[in-house]
Amino acid sequence: MKLVIETDAVAVSRTAAAVLLGTMTHDRRVNLSLTAGATPVGTYALVAPVLAANPSAYDNVHFYNFDELPLPGQDRGMTMSALDEQFYGPAGIRPQNLHELTPESEGDIRADLAGNGGLDLILMGVGSDGHFCGNMPGVTRFDADIYQFPIPTDAPWYADFASHFDTPESVPTRAVTFGAPMVNRAKRAVLIVTGAGKADALAAALTGPVTPELPASILQTHPDLLVIADQAAAAALPTR
Amino acid sequence: MKLVIETDAVAVSRTAAAVLLGTMTHDRRVNLSLTAGATPVGTYALVAPVLAANPSAYDNVHFYNFDELPLPGQDRGMTMSALDEQFYGPAGIRPQNLHELTPESEGDIRADLAGNGGLDLILMGVGSDGHFCGNMPGVTRFDADIYQFPIPTDAPWYADFASHFDTPESVPTRAVTFGAPMVNRAKRAVLIVTGAGKADALAAALTGPVTPELPASILQTHPDLLVIADQAAAAALPTR
Amino acid sequence: MKLVIETDAVAVSRTAAAVLLGTMTHDRRVNLSLTAGATPVGTYALVAPVLAANPSAYDNVHFYNFDELPLPGQDRGMTMSALDEQFYGPAGIRPQNLHELTPESEGDIRADLAGNGGLDLILMGVGSDGHFCGNMPGVTRFDADIYQFPIPTDAPWYADFASHFDTPESVPTRAVTFGAPMVNRAKRAVLIVTGAGKADALAAALTGPVTPELPASILQTHPDLLVIADQAAAAALPTR
Amino acid sequence: MKLVIETDAVAVSRTAAAVLLGTMTHDRRVNLSLTAGATPVGTYALVAPVLAANPSAYDNVHFYNFDELPLPGQDRGMTMSALDEQFYGPAGIRPQNLHELTPESEGDIRADLAGNGGLDLILMGVGSDGHFCGNMPGVTRFDADIYQFPIPTDAPWYADFASHFDTPESVPTRAVTFGAPMVNRAKRAVLIVTGAGKADALAAALTGPVTPELPASILQTHPDLLVIADQAAAAALPTR
Repeated sequence: MKLVIETDAVAVSRTAAAVLLGTMTHDRRVNLSLTAGATPVGTYALVAPVLAANPSAYDNVHFYNFDELPLPGQDRGMTMSALDEQFYGPAGIRPQNLHELTPESEGDIRADLAGNGGLDLILMGVGSDGHFCGNMPGVTRFDADIYQFPIPTDAPWYADFASHFDTPESVPTRAVTFGAPMVNRAKRAVLIVTGAGKADALAAALTGPVTPELPASILQTHPDLLVIADQAAAAALPTR
Repeated sequence: MKLVIETDAVAVSRTAAAVLLGTMTHDRRVNLSLTAGATPVGTYALVAPVLAANPSAYDNVHFYNFDELPLPGQDRGMTMSALDEQFYGPAGIRPQNLHELTPESEGDIRADLAGNGGLDLILMGVGSDGHFCGNMPGVTRFDADIYQFPIPTDAPWYADFASHFDTPESVPTRAVTFGAPMVNRAKRAVLIVTGAGKADALAAALTGPVTPELPASILQTHPDLLVIADQAAAAALPTR
Repeated sequence: MKLVIETDAVAVSRTAAAVLLGTMTHDRRVNLSLTAGATPVGTYALVAPVLAANPSAYDNVHFYNFDELPLPGQDRGMTMSALDEQFYGPAGIRPQNLHELTPESEGDIRADLAGNGGLDLILMGVGSDGHFCGNMPGVTRFDADIYQFPIPTDAPWYADFASHFDTPESVPTRAVTFGAPMVNRAKRAVLIVTGAGKADALAAALTGPVTPELPASILQTHPDLLVIADQAAAAALPTR
Repeated sequence: MKLVIETDAVAVSRTAAAVLLGTMTHDRRVNLSLTAGATPVGTYALVAPVLAANPSAYDNVHFYNFDELPLPGQDRGMTMSALDEQFYGPAGIRPQNLHELTPESEGDIRADLAGNGGLDLILMGVGSDGHFCGNMPGVTRFDADIYQFPIPTDAPWYADFASHFDTPESVPTRAVTFGAPMVNRAKRAVLIVTGAGKADALAAALTGPVTPELPASILQTHPDLLVIADQAAAAALPTR
């Protein structure tokens, strides 16, 4: 793995944005899978305006969400809704360049990626519990390229998760996610990590045993992993 | 993964030989890592004469043994000795194209592969106990690109292993091997498997959980794995 | 460029067949472009039975003819007809894996290859006049990825060309071909050359100036060119 | 080719800097070849501080000058001197990561690049006379990966060239440059072009015939060419 430690989250965003733009500018179809959430906000703030200002230059770039939690009674799931708001909308991505992973489309997405050159890059975060994409401790399988699972209501994180929804009926009950074989097939994997709250999880993931109990540990087996961390997130890594 | 099931071991050798020659003929330095043992004998019988008849056409090909068991009191270990006899000698490989992994050279080999384009292909077998390269059940770590370990004298397979040596003093006591991160970095991984004795291990490795207890199961996470098996070895795989 | 000189045409076919099978066995969609004509007959004799015996193992392989001469009044042109007879038929390739370049489909083929990972390998011959694919002396452009042209009735080779057709009305009047930019985008270019009649053209193409007057000379600029020639065809190359 | 037209030179520098940083952050040795001159000044202003602030994160990146004009009586030629001043110095590149092409080192550089994974990216400009790297009109050969030539004192540009030197004795008399085959082997080629003075040359290079008389026209045959131009430089390109 390659580790780039930056002073702060701003510098993490700058380097991550460069890696994204550097990949988008290949002279061929480019397939990307991007994370939603708080960590990439700064990265998308740098990248989205570039794309919005020059849409024809980037119409070769296609996007695949790497996980999804269907929202009962709604068209789009949690991840696509967040990505629309955070990046696809501000960047002005055309609908035909968005490829939506849902529990129903799993087979189509698998066939699609097998036939179009595959993922060029996947941009991920890591949870303080060691999850990556939708690979949560307790449900993670390293043997499935894409897989579905019911949200485990007895998981330690379930109460917190459910508290974000207004009614019990609106809490998602199942999820779909890329697994380790799909992530390892991406030509590049990029992990962006900021803040002291991630320090222990990052150190365990990058330097400890590879185990489904700490899902992100499997990223040690990716052939071209780039970790961009700020100093706070890198604090627990061994000094080299 | 891609699975090619052949009628018999002869056809496995033909396809494996084609994959090797196809890789050797790139117009650049090519780095290969080849297995010793019984399974590749037919493959090497097809490839070695081609190289021996045309050495200058293949002087771009370099070889890295992927594991080693040093033999007390001898210059070369078990793996290099076997590869010399099985392939390097008959193929007429020049000494400067052989890169010997030993416990002492581990750091050099790591730096070498990081700086010369990396492995283009690794050809492996799988043991009936599920091992690949020198990753044995009980000692396997998925987090180390190359690692060393003392041969565990209490392993279930130790008595059989030790029986192949004339005296207790000549039994190897330590080993070094490529681990999962290094294998996953090889642009192609090729697994050749023949015979009914391998059927259960192959099925478990390719379709079961990814776990160090069945080391070859990690190969499910390789980005471009080719499994070439004869019908006997493929017998326990699920019908598709 | 990498040059492999073989004793005879049989050995050329063996090496070329290995390169083809080696490429077909990647774990992803594989796109190939194959030459028709006399030179590849032995290669296809080795490869077609392997595919015919194991169709599901090779259903990831797709084929694109690299040139075409429409036959007046017929559904398929000269190149597709020849490839059907020489390879696609004997190999049992499914219709959905055949992608037919015609003057009408030029735009579709261009878009197709830009979006599906591109050509993995193009297998070509060279003419004694230095042509490659449909890039003939006198009409060759190095600046067009795919291009069409009227067959020049005043070309030195036209009388011979026209003599192969029963009536003046049945002689093709236009052609379409991949040009240099498309060929250079193929991850591998493989040139197979046999017989003394090709010796001068091969030497000029590989060691002389790059000029549209000797179209195959542009192959010197391909990033990964493999030339497999028998001794007769290699006779005029400079000794190294 | 992929064309990205930016509003102005500042935006060209931002995109070019992103492509460079995106390439530098692979988890392996990365080999780059960078242009000297006025056009990349803004790009280097963005990239150099990133490297200087974090040298250990970028010690995997190696640099090869793509041409050189030896300066009589001096250790370093024109290109290396300019690159030292413009980029290597401000970026703090270690001497062991600099690989100097000179007329004397041509063979070593060729062997070096053949054995270390090859160029990942070459960043070039284009001259108003259509030159790229040291491939000048009148002396350009498309058939040589690296080649040397005496500076032609009768070239139209010679008087201007010679006027930059204090004495007749200090004018360089020979040059060495990467040619088309070497540039085409770079995994990515990036052309940055700014200013109205380049508009005609750029249009001719990208849309006209491929000919040594306009050397940069050969870049149309590169498998992954990115052209980043400001609106002034792109003004003569056909509207799409």
